[in-house]
Amino acid sequence: MTTPLEGDDRARELLGESIVGQLSFLGLDGYPRVVPTWFDFRDGELLISNGPGTYKCRCIRAHGRVGFAVSDPTPPYRLVTLTGDAVVEVLPEAERIQLAGGQARRYLGEERAGRFFSRAPGDGELIRIRPRRIRFTNV
Amino acid sequence: MTTPLEGDDRARELLGESIVGQLSFLGLDGYPRVVPTWFDFRDGELLISNGPGTYKCRCIRAHGRVGFAVSDPTPPYRLVTLTGDAVVEVLPEAERIQLAGGQARRYLGEERAGRFFSRAPGDGELIRIRPRRIRFTNV
Repeated sequence: MTTPLEGDDRARELLGESIVGQLSFLGLDGYPRVVPTWFDFRDGELLISNGPGTYKCRCIRAHGRVGFAVSDPTPPYRLVTLTGDAVVEVLPEAERIQLAGGQARRYLGEERAGRFFSRAPGDGELIRIRPRRIRFTNV
Repeated sequence: MTTPLEGDDRARELLGESIVGQLSFLGLDGYPRVVPTWFDFRDGELLISNGPGTYKCRCIRAHGRVGFAVSDPTPPYRLVTLTGDAVVEVLPEAERIQLAGGQARRYLGEERAGRFFSRAPGDGELIRIRPRRIRFTNV
Protein backbone atom coordinates (compact mmCIF):
# COMPACT_ATOMS: atom_id res chain seq x y z
CA MET A 1 0.00 0.00 0.00
CA THR A 2 1.43 3.37 -0.92
CA THR A 3 1.12 5.99 1.78
CA PRO A 4 2.65 9.39 2.40
CA LEU A 5 4.69 7.71 5.14
CA GLU A 6 6.74 5.47 2.93
CA GLY A 7 10.24 6.72 2.74
CA ASP A 8 10.28 8.18 6.21
CA ASP A 9 11.48 5.38 8.40
CA ARG A 10 11.82 7.61 11.43
CA ALA A 11 8.13 8.53 11.43
CA ARG A 12 7.11 4.94 10.84
CA GLU A 13 9.36 3.73 13.63
CA LEU A 14 8.00 6.21 16.15
CA LEU A 15 4.40 5.42 15.18
CA GLY A 16 5.18 1.75 15.72
CA GLU A 17 6.36 2.21 19.30
CA SER A 18 3.85 1.96 22.11
CA ILE A 19 3.65 5.63 22.96
CA VAL A 20 0.23 7.09 23.68
CA GLY A 21 -0.95 9.21 20.74
CA GLN A 22 -2.74 12.56 20.83
CA LEU A 23 -5.83 12.83 18.65
CA SER A 24 -7.07 16.25 17.65
CA PHE A 25 -10.50 16.85 16.16
CA LEU A 26 -13.04 19.60 15.87
CA GLY A 27 -15.69 19.66 18.60
CA LEU A 28 -19.35 20.11 17.75
CA ASP A 29 -19.08 23.59 19.31
CA GLY A 30 -16.33 24.62 16.89
CA TYR A 31 -13.53 24.33 19.44
CA PRO A 32 -10.67 21.92 18.66
CA ARG A 33 -10.18 19.07 21.10
CA VAL A 34 -7.22 16.89 21.95
CA VAL A 35 -7.36 13.59 23.81
CA PRO A 36 -4.73 10.94 24.50
CA THR A 37 -5.41 7.64 22.83
CA TRP A 38 -4.05 4.17 22.24
CA PHE A 39 -3.69 3.33 18.57
CA ASP A 40 -2.37 0.83 16.07
CA PHE A 41 -0.43 1.92 13.02
CA ARG A 42 -1.13 -0.72 10.44
CA ASP A 43 -0.88 -0.74 6.64
CA GLY A 44 -0.35 3.01 6.65
CA GLU A 45 -3.47 3.78 8.70
CA LEU A 46 -4.06 4.69 12.32
CA LEU A 47 -6.69 2.57 14.06
CA ILE A 48 -8.38 3.68 17.28
CA SER A 49 -10.83 1.52 19.18
CA ASN A 50 -13.75 3.15 20.98
CA GLY A 51 -16.81 2.22 22.94
CA PRO A 52 -20.16 2.99 21.33
CA GLY A 53 -21.48 6.54 21.16
CA THR A 54 -18.43 8.49 22.28
CA TYR A 55 -18.28 12.23 21.82
CA LYS A 56 -15.13 12.05 19.70
CA CYS A 57 -16.73 9.62 17.27
CA ARG A 58 -19.76 11.87 16.91
CA CYS A 59 -17.45 14.81 16.22
CA ILE A 60 -15.39 12.92 13.67
CA ARG A 61 -18.50 11.67 11.90
CA ALA A 62 -19.51 15.32 11.53
CA HIS A 63 -16.05 16.57 10.53
CA GLY A 64 -13.55 13.96 9.37
CA ARG A 65 -10.45 16.12 9.36
CA VAL A 66 -8.15 15.28 12.24
CA GLY A 67 -4.70 15.90 13.60
CA PHE A 68 -2.51 13.41 15.41
CA ALA A 69 0.80 13.52 17.24
CA VAL A 70 3.15 11.10 18.92
CA SER A 71 5.99 12.51 20.94
CA ASP A 72 8.78 10.65 22.67
CA PRO A 73 9.11 12.23 26.13
CA THR A 74 12.85 11.49 26.30
CA PRO A 75 15.77 13.08 24.37
CA PRO A 76 16.09 13.73 21.46
CA TYR A 77 12.31 14.30 21.82
CA ARG A 78 11.31 12.79 18.52
CA LEU A 79 7.93 14.02 17.32
CA VAL A 80 5.57 12.90 14.59
CA THR A 81 2.70 15.19 13.73
CA LEU A 82 0.22 14.47 10.99
CA THR A 83 -3.06 15.52 9.52
CA GLY A 84 -5.44 12.97 8.12
CA ASP A 85 -8.90 12.08 6.95
CA ALA A 86 -10.84 9.93 9.36
CA VAL A 87 -13.91 7.75 9.15
CA VAL A 88 -15.88 6.09 11.93
CA GLU A 89 -16.97 2.51 11.38
CA VAL A 90 -18.78 -0.10 13.42
CA LEU A 91 -16.22 -2.26 15.24
CA PRO A 92 -17.82 -5.67 15.73
CA GLU A 93 -17.26 -7.15 19.18
CA ALA A 94 -14.79 -9.86 18.10
CA GLU A 95 -12.63 -7.33 16.22
CA ARG A 96 -12.92 -4.88 19.09
CA ILE A 97 -11.61 -7.47 21.53
CA GLN A 98 -8.75 -8.23 19.18
CA LEU A 99 -7.79 -4.61 18.50
CA ALA A 100 -8.28 -3.12 21.95
CA GLY A 101 -6.97 -6.24 23.65
CA GLY A 102 -3.78 -6.07 21.63
CA GLN A 103 -3.41 -2.39 22.46
CA ALA A 104 -3.96 -3.12 26.15
CA ARG A 105 -1.16 -5.68 26.03
CA ARG A 106 1.19 -3.26 24.32
CA TYR A 107 0.36 -0.24 26.47
CA LEU A 108 -0.31 -1.89 29.84
CA GLY A 109 1.67 -5.13 29.66
CA GLU A 110 0.38 -8.69 29.65
CA GLU A 111 -0.58 -8.91 33.31
CA ARG A 112 -2.74 -5.82 33.57
CA ALA A 113 -4.13 -6.31 30.06
CA GLY A 114 -5.68 -9.57 31.23
CA ARG A 115 -8.15 -7.58 33.30
CA PHE A 116 -8.94 -5.09 30.53
CA PHE A 117 -12.12 -6.68 29.22
CA SER A 118 -13.56 -8.21 32.35
CA ARG A 119 -16.72 -9.04 30.42
CA ALA A 120 -17.89 -9.09 26.82
CA PRO A 121 -17.73 -5.45 25.67
CA GLY A 122 -20.21 -5.54 22.80
CA ASP A 123 -19.68 -3.75 19.51
CA GLY A 124 -17.68 -0.56 19.51
CA GLU A 125 -16.60 2.04 16.97
CA LEU A 126 -13.40 2.26 15.01
CA ILE A 127 -11.74 5.53 14.05
CA ARG A 128 -9.69 4.87 10.93
CA ILE A 129 -7.30 7.65 9.96
CA ARG A 130 -5.67 7.85 6.59
CA PRO A 131 -2.65 10.17 6.93
CA ARG A 132 -2.53 13.01 4.49
CA ARG A 133 0.63 14.79 5.51
CA ILE A 134 3.26 13.75 8.01
CA ARG A 135 6.13 15.56 9.67
CA PHE A 136 8.95 14.10 11.68
CA THR A 137 11.06 16.39 13.84
CA ASN A 138 13.41 16.32 16.75
CA VAL A 139 12.04 19.00 19.05
CA MET B 1 -9.48 36.21 39.60
CA THR B 2 -12.51 34.06 39.01
CA THR B 3 -11.97 31.30 36.51
CA PRO B 4 -13.90 28.21 35.52
CA LEU B 5 -11.17 26.23 37.25
CA GLU B 6 -11.86 27.43 40.75
CA GLY B 7 -13.42 24.68 42.76
CA ASP B 8 -11.66 21.89 40.93
CA ASP B 9 -8.47 21.37 42.81
CA ARG B 10 -7.58 18.22 40.89
CA ALA B 11 -7.50 20.05 37.56
CA ARG B 12 -5.54 22.92 39.03
CA GLU B 13 -3.07 20.55 40.64
CA LEU B 14 -2.43 18.62 37.43
CA LEU B 15 -2.04 21.84 35.44
CA GLY B 16 0.52 22.98 38.00
CA GLU B 17 2.75 19.94 37.58
CA SER B 18 5.50 20.01 34.99
CA ILE B 19 3.91 17.69 32.48
CA VAL B 20 4.17 18.63 28.82
CA GLY B 21 0.83 19.93 27.54
CA GLN B 22 -0.86 19.21 24.21
CA LEU B 23 -2.13 22.24 22.33
CA SER B 24 -4.80 21.78 19.70
CA PHE B 25 -5.69 24.45 17.17
CA LEU B 26 -7.18 24.73 13.72
CA GLY B 27 -4.65 24.76 10.87
CA LEU B 28 -4.93 27.28 8.07
CA ASP B 29 -5.94 24.37 5.82
CA GLY B 30 -8.92 23.52 8.03
CA TYR B 31 -7.28 20.46 9.59
CA PRO B 32 -6.90 20.42 13.37
CA ARG B 33 -3.36 20.21 14.70
CA VAL B 34 -1.88 19.05 17.96
CA VAL B 35 1.60 19.80 19.24
CA PRO B 36 3.31 19.18 22.57
CA THR B 37 4.19 22.32 24.45
CA TRP B 38 5.64 23.66 27.66
CA PHE B 39 3.30 26.00 29.48
CA ASP B 40 2.70 27.97 32.66
CA PHE B 41 -0.65 27.94 34.37
CA ARG B 42 -0.86 31.27 36.12
CA ASP B 43 -3.80 33.32 37.40
CA GLY B 44 -6.21 30.99 35.66
CA GLU B 45 -4.55 31.32 32.24
CA LEU B 46 -2.24 29.11 30.21
CA LEU B 47 0.88 30.87 28.92
CA ILE B 48 2.94 29.47 26.05
CA SER B 49 6.19 31.05 24.88
CA ASN B 50 7.06 30.94 21.19
CA GLY B 51 9.69 32.19 18.83
CA PRO B 52 8.59 34.80 16.29
CA GLY B 53 6.48 33.84 13.28
CA THR B 54 5.58 30.26 14.16
CA TYR B 55 2.89 28.46 12.24
CA LYS B 56 0.82 27.84 15.37
CA CYS B 57 0.77 31.52 16.26
CA ARG B 58 -0.37 32.40 12.76
CA CYS B 59 -3.13 29.81 13.02
CA ILE B 60 -4.28 31.00 16.43
CA ARG B 61 -4.30 34.60 15.29
CA ALA B 62 -6.66 33.51 12.51
CA HIS B 63 -8.82 31.29 14.71
CA GLY B 64 -8.53 31.78 18.46
CA ARG B 65 -10.44 28.72 19.60
CA VAL B 66 -8.13 26.08 21.01
CA GLY B 67 -8.11 22.82 22.90
CA PHE B 68 -5.57 21.75 25.47
CA ALA B 69 -4.83 18.58 27.40
CA VAL B 70 -2.47 17.43 30.10
CA SER B 71 -2.33 13.75 30.88
CA ASP B 72 -0.36 12.01 33.57
CA PRO B 73 1.26 8.96 31.91
CA THR B 74 1.15 6.94 35.16
CA PRO B 75 -1.84 5.40 37.02
CA PRO B 76 -4.51 6.54 37.72
CA TYR B 77 -3.92 8.37 34.40
CA ARG B 78 -5.31 11.71 35.48
CA LEU B 79 -6.37 13.83 32.54
CA VAL B 80 -7.33 17.47 32.17
CA THR B 81 -8.90 18.54 28.90
CA LEU B 82 -10.09 22.03 28.22
CA THR B 83 -11.28 24.37 25.54
CA GLY B 84 -10.35 28.00 25.59
CA ASP B 85 -10.06 31.29 23.80
CA ALA B 86 -6.54 32.25 22.87
CA VAL B 87 -4.80 35.43 21.85
CA VAL B 88 -1.29 35.94 20.48
CA GLU B 89 0.72 38.84 21.88
CA VAL B 90 4.22 40.15 21.43
CA LEU B 91 6.49 38.66 24.09
CA PRO B 92 9.27 41.18 24.70
CA GLU B 93 12.71 39.62 24.98
CA ALA B 94 13.12 40.16 28.75
CA GLU B 95 9.74 38.57 29.48
CA ARG B 96 10.47 35.80 27.02
CA ILE B 97 13.68 34.93 28.81
CA GLN B 98 11.85 34.93 32.12
CA LEU B 99 8.91 32.81 30.95
CA ALA B 100 10.72 30.33 28.71
CA GLY B 101 13.71 30.18 31.03
CA GLY B 102 11.48 29.29 33.96
CA GLN B 103 9.77 26.63 31.86
CA ALA B 104 13.14 25.22 30.81
CA ARG B 105 14.12 24.90 34.46
CA ARG B 106 10.88 23.15 35.34
CA TYR B 107 10.82 20.83 32.35
CA LEU B 108 14.52 20.17 31.83
CA GLY B 109 16.01 20.75 35.26
CA GLU B 110 18.46 23.44 36.33
CA GLU B 111 21.56 22.03 34.68
CA ARG B 112 20.23 21.58 31.16
CA ALA B 113 18.12 24.73 31.40
CA GLY B 114 21.32 26.75 31.75
CA ARG B 115 22.10 26.03 28.12
CA PHE B 116 18.59 26.80 26.87
CA PHE B 117 19.15 30.38 25.75
CA SER B 118 22.75 30.29 24.63
CA ARG B 119 22.37 33.80 23.26
CA ALA B 120 19.86 36.62 23.43
CA PRO B 121 16.70 35.27 21.77
CA GLY B 122 15.01 38.51 20.76
CA ASP B 123 11.29 39.13 21.07
CA GLY B 124 8.94 36.19 20.76
CA GLU B 125 5.22 35.61 20.81
CA LEU B 126 2.99 34.65 23.70
CA ILE B 127 -0.06 32.44 23.38
CA ARG B 128 -2.40 33.32 26.22
CA ILE B 129 -5.31 30.93 26.72
CA ARG B 130 -8.30 31.75 28.82
CA PRO B 131 -10.01 28.45 29.69
CA ARG B 132 -13.67 28.29 28.84
CA ARG B 133 -14.55 24.78 29.95
CA ILE B 134 -12.46 22.26 31.81
CA ARG B 135 -12.85 18.57 32.48
CA PHE B 136 -10.91 16.43 34.90
CA THR B 137 -11.08 12.65 34.56
CA ASN B 138 -9.23 9.54 35.55
CA VAL B 139 -8.90 7.62 32.30
